[in-house]
Amino acid sequence: MSVTHLTAPGERVDSEPVTLRVGVVGAGFMGRVHAEAARRAGATVVAATASRPDRAAAAARAVGAERGYPGVAELLGTAGVDVVHICTPNATHAPVAAAALAAGAHVVCEKPLATGLAEATGLAAAAVDRVATVPFVYRFHPMVRELRARLAAGEAGTVATVTGSYLQDWLSRPTDDDWRVDSGLGGASRAFGDIGSHWADLFEFVTGDRITRLSARTAVVHERGTQQVPPTEDLAALLFTTAAGTVGTLVVSQVAAGRKNRLHLEISGTDASFAFDQEDPERLWAGRRAGGQVLLRDPATLHPSAARYVRLPAGHAQGYQDCFDAFVADTYAAIRGEAPAGLPTFADGLRTVRVTDAVLSSAAGDGEWVEVTP
Amino acid sequence: MSVTHLTAPGERVDSEPVTLRVGVVGAGFMGRVHAEAARRAGATVVAATASRPDRAAAAARAVGAERGYPGVAELLGTAGVDVVHICTPNATHAPVAAAALAAGAHVVCEKPLATGLAEATGLAAAAVDRVATVPFVYRFHPMVRELRARLAAGEAGTVATVTGSYLQDWLSRPTDDDWRVDSGLGGASRAFGDIGSHWADLFEFVTGDRITRLSARTAVVHERGTQQVPPTEDLAALLFTTAAGTVGTLVVSQVAAGRKNRLHLEISGTDASFAFDQEDPERLWAGRRAGGQVLLRDPATLHPSAARYVRLPAGHAQGYQDCFDAFVADTYAAIRGEAPAGLPTFADGLRTVRVTDAVLSSAAGDGEWVEVTP
Amino acid sequence: MSVTHLTAPGERVDSEPVTLRVGVVGAGFMGRVHAEAARRAGATVVAATASRPDRAAAAARAVGAERGYPGVAELLGTAGVDVVHICTPNATHAPVAAAALAAGAHVVCEKPLATGLAEATGLAAAAVDRVATVPFVYRFHPMVRELRARLAAGEAGTVATVTGSYLQDWLSRPTDDDWRVDSGLGGASRAFGDIGSHWADLFEFVTGDRITRLSARTAVVHERGTQQVPPTEDLAALLFTTAAGTVGTLVVSQVAAGRKNRLHLEISGTDASFAFDQEDPERLWAGRRAGGQVLLRDPATLHPSAARYVRLPAGHAQGYQDCFDAFVADTYAAIRGEAPAGLPTFADGLRTVRVTDAVLSSAAGDGEWVEVTP
Amino acid sequence: MSVTHLTAPGERVDSEPVTLRVGVVGAGFMGRVHAEAARRAGATVVAATASRPDRAAAAARAVGAERGYPGVAELLGTAGVDVVHICTPNATHAPVAAAALAAGAHVVCEKPLATGLAEATGLAAAAVDRVATVPFVYRFHPMVRELRARLAAGEAGTVATVTGSYLQDWLSRPTDDDWRVDSGLGGASRAFGDIGSHWADLFEFVTGDRITRLSARTAVVHERGTQQVPPTEDLAALLFTTAAGTVGTLVVSQVAAGRKNRLHLEISGTDASFAFDQEDPERLWAGRRAGGQVLLRDPATLHPSAARYVRLPAGHAQGYQDCFDAFVADTYAAIRGEAPAGLPTFADGLRTVRVTDAVLSSAAGDGEWVEVTP
Ligand SMILES: NC(=O)c1ccc[n+]([C@@H]2O[C@H](COP(=O)([O-])OP(=O)(O)OC[C@H]3O[C@@H](n4cnc5c(N)ncnc54)[C@H](O)[C@@H]3O)[C@@H](O)[C@H]2O)c1
Ligand SMILES: NC(=O)c1ccc[n+]([C@@H]2O[C@H](COP(=O)([O-])OP(=O)(O)OC[C@H]3O[C@@H](n4cnc5c(N)ncnc54)[C@H](O)[C@@H]3O)[C@@H](O)[C@H]2O)c1
Ligand SMILES: NC(=O)c1ccc[n+]([C@@H]2O[C@H](COP(=O)([O-])OP(=O)(O)OC[C@H]3O[C@@H](n4cnc5c(N)ncnc54)[C@H](O)[C@@H]3O)[C@@H](O)[C@H]2O)c1
Ligand SMILES: NC(=O)c1ccc[n+]([C@@H]2O[C@H](COP(=O)([O-])OP(=O)(O)OC[C@H]3O[C@@H](n4cnc5c(N)ncnc54)[C@H](O)[C@@H]3O)[C@@H](O)[C@H]2O)c1
Repeated sequence: MSVTHLTAPGERVDSEPVTLRVGVVGAGFMGRVHAEAARRAGATVVAATASRPDRAAAAARAVGAERGYPGVAELLGTAGVDVVHICTPNATHAPVAAAALAAGAHVVCEKPLATGLAEATGLAAAAVDRVATVPFVYRFHPMVRELRARLAAGEAGTVATVTGSYLQDWLSRPTDDDWRVDSGLGGASRAFGDIGSHWADLFEFVTGDRITRLSARTAVVHERGTQQVPPTEDLAALLFTTAAGTVGTLVVSQVAAGRKNRLHLEISGTDASFAFDQEDPERLWAGRRAGGQVLLRDPATLHPSAARYVRLPAGHAQGYQDCFDAFVADTYAAIRGEAPAGLPTFADGLRTVRVTDAVLSSAAGDGEWVEVTP
Repeated sequence: MSVTHLTAPGERVDSEPVTLRVGVVGAGFMGRVHAEAARRAGATVVAATASRPDRAAAAARAVGAERGYPGVAELLGTAGVDVVHICTPNATHAPVAAAALAAGAHVVCEKPLATGLAEATGLAAAAVDRVATVPFVYRFHPMVRELRARLAAGEAGTVATVTGSYLQDWLSRPTDDDWRVDSGLGGASRAFGDIGSHWADLFEFVTGDRITRLSARTAVVHERGTQQVPPTEDLAALLFTTAAGTVGTLVVSQVAAGRKNRLHLEISGTDASFAFDQEDPERLWAGRRAGGQVLLRDPATLHPSAARYVRLPAGHAQGYQDCFDAFVADTYAAIRGEAPAGLPTFADGLRTVRVTDAVLSSAAGDGEWVEVTP
Repeated sequence: MSVTHLTAPGERVDSEPVTLRVGVVGAGFMGRVHAEAARRAGATVVAATASRPDRAAAAARAVGAERGYPGVAELLGTAGVDVVHICTPNATHAPVAAAALAAGAHVVCEKPLATGLAEATGLAAAAVDRVATVPFVYRFHPMVRELRARLAAGEAGTVATVTGSYLQDWLSRPTDDDWRVDSGLGGASRAFGDIGSHWADLFEFVTGDRITRLSARTAVVHERGTQQVPPTEDLAALLFTTAAGTVGTLVVSQVAAGRKNRLHLEISGTDASFAFDQEDPERLWAGRRAGGQVLLRDPATLHPSAARYVRLPAGHAQGYQDCFDAFVADTYAAIRGEAPAGLPTFADGLRTVRVTDAVLSSAAGDGEWVEVTP
Repeated sequence: MSVTHLTAPGERVDSEPVTLRVGVVGAGFMGRVHAEAARRAGATVVAATASRPDRAAAAARAVGAERGYPGVAELLGTAGVDVVHICTPNATHAPVAAAALAAGAHVVCEKPLATGLAEATGLAAAAVDRVATVPFVYRFHPMVRELRARLAAGEAGTVATVTGSYLQDWLSRPTDDDWRVDSGLGGASRAFGDIGSHWADLFEFVTGDRITRLSARTAVVHERGTQQVPPTEDLAALLFTTAAGTVGTLVVSQVAAGRKNRLHLEISGTDASFAFDQEDPERLWAGRRAGGQVLLRDPATLHPSAARYVRLPAGHAQGYQDCFDAFVADTYAAIRGEAPAGLPTFADGLRTVRVTDAVLSSAAGDGEWVEVTP
């Protein structure tokens, strides 16, 4: 692989940006979203691979890549890509990411970074001289940045409690199935690894705080066709404390009828409280003793760190793809040597693997309290 | 005391209802609410007592009673009351309730029933041949009954998780103070005993389920003037499991800026989910895989057990006093020998004292899991 | 009739308030609501009449009156009432109110004050030395008073537009019927007279402005059993201008599926806008260029003129009956010689009859613009 | 200009789609949005022009075009574009569109299609053998299509009333100014032409109905620097009737503090009502006598004509750019010979110019009723 034309991270460039050459591994739902965002960020999607050599061309077509490759090795060896986007089932993330880093590529690796703590630790260590990011994309909603800026400014006073949930219903019926259900592909944790990890990242990102101890319960509600032994959890619920002394709860479920992708968090401080709902990302509720405000994504009033992610005037809704695009654009900016704030890296990916690990180990011990490695 | 003209509970009466004679102990905020509800239920508020003999007349005026009495003993001994409403600070509930029962009166005793488990147990045992209720009045919102009826009918499928919170902000500042802060008056638990108890009762009431094990954390955020050693908690957060296998979380706080009296619960089932917000009690959200419904308090569509509490047509909001009135009316109906469903009795009062006790003992053990006595 | 023990309006009294003796004419839905509010205001409901002499006793029972009377004449002649509450079908309001005033009683007359402009004018003229009110009770929601206070203080800047609606669905099916459908009982205007009148009163009350010119359209959607020729309208829609130069619209319908009693108004000013929804009366939305606020009915933050109507702490919902009670209490306070602000009198009742008359006459002229008599 | 390689509309093609060559006239806010959507639809933005020859290169950079041209004539004469996107101030739309059509190009022309009725009529006539569309992009929100499908299926029963508003606040202060304020650039109608036109198109699109008669009022609230004589309106309000007999109201304002881009419509039928808010485009409220539903943009439950515009799973918000992209993609599909349903054409552009014309002429006649030419 030849990634010779790129500067190292941190090195500033004055000339016109070189068009990045992107390879996409895994051409499913996320593969398409990544490829689209890559193009919108000005990159060229040159290569794609599927799960089987005979589907190489189909994968290329699915994500709009110039060429399909029979496998990751071929893609890394001959496509001359600058960045590899890993959009495959979870268990494959670690080996593909390791190979991509070894080949000198920058890497965008889907969450969870790895299905095991050891691999995640290894990847975070290996990622040091390349840009290596994980799409915790909710960080890129302008109102999330606004929340982060306000908390950083101390607006909330003492953050006493946080009430969280991430609820979905696409697995609410026993007949619902997916590769995520199979621990061999999805990893030992399903609901928490898949979506709880997003919540944990978002909470720690907006508060700048760390979950330090937790007690967790998990449950399996349905037997499913591809379920292994032991089965992966349909839901997880946590009680936790943080480095700053906040006490929090979190309910994560993929069997909650009527909720599609509802990541919700309410941060309750003594001076102000804030509530954010990922399904309604253009608004942020801010409550004070004297009443509540509904803050809008209005460039005229947002903190600069939030206004940075505004693409459209107030009242013209930005959505999920917009925050995804911003994540990829920031990743590429980092590759070009810039240092955008709040980029979720492999270190962040490792962090949520640690939280997931703590959740599983607490749940295995009937909710016993466990420390989360910082 | 002479409560001779009343039938025992369970005994049906055909004649015109006798006008109940009511005594109110404690003429503060709740004393006035109870007295008003008593009058609306057709009773006569004949007696009131205050905290000091010299305020007897003022207490009578405050609640609109015919006469003020220097103390509970005098009221019980000479006022000829059928029912005593106990609306004083928590620590006084148990002795006053015991005395009232001993005097043969029916009793409405504010929550928490007692500040100690032993007293609560004694009261529940003593209450057997009198009507003895505790104002867990949120049970009397029609939409709460609707929720209960739907859960009883199995509409939710498997209730997998529940996400709860009860948030207030009236103690969010260090200068905020109240008798509840003083453990000598309010009891060892403040936030949980005061409002968490309502949530626990409501959850168990609508589901018919029981919290069996829990892990809890509490915290004291502010030092306050009347705070004792050990101080009472500003907040509590719980992870719990139930007899039916539901996993739940609950955050209770009196220092959550921007929330006034927000008791919220979202019950997530595999077939349907339901969310109720005490500050918006005329609506109930019902979510299903195919979308969400906002159920209204419309007599035309409610379950009979909910329609029973409808006083006004749809769109003419019922409020807190309406559910309080319904609670008192049902208590008096029970005194007249009827058996209204869902009346919160001393047994229910004892139950929440047990939950509170478990919360404090888990929190004292750094969140260790404790069993809740059924 | 002997109303000798009462002071004239305006005359202050120092002695204990005399218990008012109340007579209720019409013992249907509103008769019960009025009687309940009268009792809560400390009055005694001594008399009631029904539509037929043989239902006198039943009427008394229905509203909890001491005695039933065969007719209005008997009630006025012998019951010794201080105040008469008129809760009968619309066409009877004027003759009963005139008789009650003639008998020297204070009068609370349901809206519409009369079904004809001449009668309404006569009543307003006749009411001068008695307290004579019309239950435009939405004025008594604390958040309505808050809105009024803020508009009076100029917070909105120039009030440029108002968008209004009052939507119900209880007549949405052709088989739905009611005495209101019959113009002989309900009057020539149905939807507007019945509910549009409430909206018009509320708008003029909160703004202190006057609708001066309007263009209206009405429609009859269903033929119904008791419909007369010409039929009464199922809906009305208006474009109007005001004395202050505001331009507004209003849609009134009783055939709008899914809406129960939704009186909504959004007042859009150049500095601030406000939205109020009668079905969610504990909140008031206030929008400014920099974002929106949700103002809560919190005694700690309300304007004194609004806080006056607070009965319960923030977060303990007040409802329709609470505002009805406040209206009756203020009416009785006026009878006792006080001068509560914002009491809706026969002059206000006449005012909405004028607006209704203008609506019908514009609609009859295919929406031609008509002046509304001030 | 040579647009030789394209098929005529209606003619089906089997071969690979040829990459369309796009020219963008006007490189402001909309120019960028159009160019981005063009690229996402697979086209190449080859040309751009600015308002002045010396800004040609800057315009090209702003929209990412290959080359800047000094003027429209040069662009049409030498750039070899297949499609021209007109994104300039309103008064220039008609001449540029006419020139582009004359040059044989397909045209996407921003609304309003023209500032005069005669020009708009001419353009609609001239557009017959080219694809010529107007970005009434709100049509491309999936929930708008869902609403349209449900109304077409008769779900609402008789649509009796519609309550509409389109409120913004970016011109709420006297110091706010813009080229739209100047009638020479923006046209004689400002608020209505700019945003009322969107509402009118959306209403007629979802209902398939036609506004036939209307009475309108307009007002100028602030004097502004670029205001001409006569000034353009800050607001307009309408009462209207439709071919199907619906009665409706609409308030349009650009001086409504607190509202950013709030296009709202509530369609009230006898069987069901529907409400849509452009600022919350992922939801559609559907009310029925038995209660209300909140329909979500969930591919699993949407009508096929709505599901067609789903790009992301439920709960992953789509936004304004997504609907814009869909509009451009459909325009290009039409250029390739397909016939996507609901494409807003010059005929639709003409239609809203007619409505705007009627609004101005009614307002000039103090709200006199005018017919809208079909
Ligand atoms: N960041 C987010 O918000 C977000 C959202 C959804 C999914 N994800 C993550 O994205 C990843 C993919 O999820 P998805 O929803 O796109 O799943 P998907 O099933 O739609 O796509 C996975 C694709 O990977 C292919 N594949 C499997 N094994 C492969 C291999 N060895 N080499 C190449 N391709 C292979 C499959 O054929 C399939 O096309 C998962 O790790 C998931 O956790 C992240
Ligand atoms: N069920 C509910 O929803 C609800 C709501 C609020 C309060 N409460 C409960 O009601 C009780 C009273 O609370 P409150 O808010 O009315 O408090 P409060 O301070 O307003 O009133 C308490 C009153 O009791 C009087 N008092 C104190 N000691 C007394 C004594 N020995 N004898 C007679 N009177 C005495 C005080 O003078 C005061 O007037 C508490 O136990 C509280 O938990 C219940
Ligand atoms: N202010 C409000 O918010 C509000 C709300 C609802 C109704 N109203 C008004 O209240 C009035 C009554 O409405 P309602 O909903 O109670 O109707 P209803 O039909 O429930 O009650 C009307 C009652 O009047 C009785 N009646 C008829 N003719 C009579 C007569 N000549 N003498 C004595 N009684 C007679 C009927 O038997 C019936 O009991 C109407 O004018 C209506 O506009 C006002
Ligand atoms: N469909 C929608 O939802 C929507 C939304 C916003 C604006 N618009 C329409 O888009 C058009 C542009 O609005 P905008 O907000 O982008 O305005 P803008 O002021 O941001 O951009 C207009 C651009 O046109 C350029 N221009 C002016 N005269 C020109 C000429 N003769 N030739 C070439 N360029 C010229 C200006 O320099 C400017 O860059 C307007 O007609 C407006 O009504 C539509």
